[in-house]
Amino acid sequence: MNLSRVMIYGMGLMGGSLALSIRGKFPETNITAVVRSEKSKHTILSKKLANHVVLQSEMELPDWSNYDLVVFSTPVESILKIIPTLPKSGNTIFIDLGSTKETTVTAVESYYGTQTHNYISTHPMCGSEQAGPDAAVENLYVDKLCILTKPNSASGTSLEWVRSFWERVGSWTIEMDSKSHDETLAYLSHLPHVVSTILVNVAGANFRTMQEVTGISKPITGGGFRDMSRIAGSNPEMWISIFKENKDFLRKSIDDFIFQLTEFRDLLKPDSPFDENKMRSLWELAQSNKEEIRKSK
Amino acid sequence: MNLSRVMIYGMGLMGGSLALSIRGKFPETNITAVVRSEKSKHTILSKKLANHVVLQSEMELPDWSNYDLVVFSTPVESILKIIPTLPKSGNTIFIDLGSTKETTVTAVESYYGTQTHNYISTHPMCGSEQAGPDAAVENLYVDKLCILTKPNSASGTSLEWVRSFWERVGSWTIEMDSKSHDETLAYLSHLPHVVSTILVNVAGANFRTMQEVTGISKPITGGGFRDMSRIAGSNPEMWISIFKENKDFLRKSIDDFIFQLTEFRDLLKPDSPFDENKMRSLWELAQSNKEEIRKSK
Repeated sequence: MNLSRVMIYGMGLMGGSLALSIRGKFPETNITAVVRSEKSKHTILSKKLANHVVLQSEMELPDWSNYDLVVFSTPVESILKIIPTLPKSGNTIFIDLGSTKETTVTAVESYYGTQTHNYISTHPMCGSEQAGPDAAVENLYVDKLCILTKPNSASGTSLEWVRSFWERVGSWTIEMDSKSHDETLAYLSHLPHVVSTILVNVAGANFRTMQEVTGISKPITGGGFRDMSRIAGSNPEMWISIFKENKDFLRKSIDDFIFQLTEFRDLLKPDSPFDENKMRSLWELAQSNKEEIRKSK
Repeated sequence: MNLSRVMIYGMGLMGGSLALSIRGKFPETNITAVVRSEKSKHTILSKKLANHVVLQSEMELPDWSNYDLVVFSTPVESILKIIPTLPKSGNTIFIDLGSTKETTVTAVESYYGTQTHNYISTHPMCGSEQAGPDAAVENLYVDKLCILTKPNSASGTSLEWVRSFWERVGSWTIEMDSKSHDETLAYLSHLPHVVSTILVNVAGANFRTMQEVTGISKPITGGGFRDMSRIAGSNPEMWISIFKENKDFLRKSIDDFIFQLTEFRDLLKPDSPFDENKMRSLWELAQSNKEEIRKSK
């Protein structure tokens, strides 16, 4: 695998961690980072995440063909703006690390049309509540899933190259088309973030709860609430951008959630009998769904 | 504190762990356990959780006055049946470990009327996904919150005795009236369990999600889904009993949740502008609510 020159466009936690992984596996690789702030530039140079750091404001469009691999590690919205500037020939492989796929893949497909290209969209399923290159760690991608999405007209060799690249970094890979990716992630990732945030705000809006909470110096609740609120309100800029890109599937998942929760609520109506069997079957169904989705109890 | 003889009526994880705590702090205390199954009896004797174990089926009503402290560690429904059998005089202190308070406290108040008594309802805020005396551990109550609810006509000395008892066991205590307890716990504990269970079932009902999930041997999702699903479907018998006792406050909390989630869903309508500021303010509100409720970020 030839990896002499890599550009990482946008270097926060994800891009910075990828730089460290590349340093570990391909010590000869020359890494160029493109960032927006002087602060990031300073961090990247002092942590030696890249050999060169360029500020976005100081640069015209880069000469993409100088690189074996270009990694877009910025929000999807800004990737969409870059796609129409990419070269239509050459051997450079392009990947992004975006959390949604449909808008990116559609942009790639409409830009390249029937022309063969080397753009593979990827989604490494990892991250952290921390952000920025300061938080970068070498093993972020080790033993994590990386989802690969191949746009129409992407070459088969580029897909295999990208698959090998992620496997060398330590990830395991699967392929999904862009719609399956965005729908599945709506249910398994985006909806849980919304639900956690709303849960905290519902408790926060209840007068008696907050009166009790503010009256004491220790938390009232145990592990259940702590787990259910961990991701609440995290990373607003990142999540708002994800919700915007995936709003249709997210809305559908919320509608499904409201439907099922309303059915449960109706079991608690004052004038209807308390249907323990129905509740028990919902609990048992959740046990088996949980085991299947988490691949463990 | 005189604690020569204690009866623990119902000895699973909670009662068994309390027996171990008492053994640690009051080594001279003679503990009697009342249980339903031969299997529990066997476990309790082999783990030396109690000096005597009586099967419920072998026993008429116990002579409560033989004990300094009686602890009811059974579901609330069965506590409600026992309350009308308690003595109306004597020095025995009665407590329960029930997860809801209003039905228990109402039963105590209607039984004793204006007569002074020694029944204090308590709720140690701990537990585990495990159950049964086998899972009992000595430090379960250490550094945990125990909520004390004093029914009308309970003596002030019994309240202080019970407070000291829990503090000796290692818990820190606060007082709440029964309605505040049940409403607060609906929002901070019961609703989160419902939401976690529904979340897993919503994902489980989505065809594309489950198609992707069943196609691979490792979990697709990272820490967010794992945290949000940990309590899903757990302990059906215990939770169904809690929901039954607290159905009005739980229904109210679900209605609040559906209301706020519907407001969020409406931000994703296909024909309305995407209001990033509104979303950002929801996320920031969640950050501050979370910090206040968890007493940490």
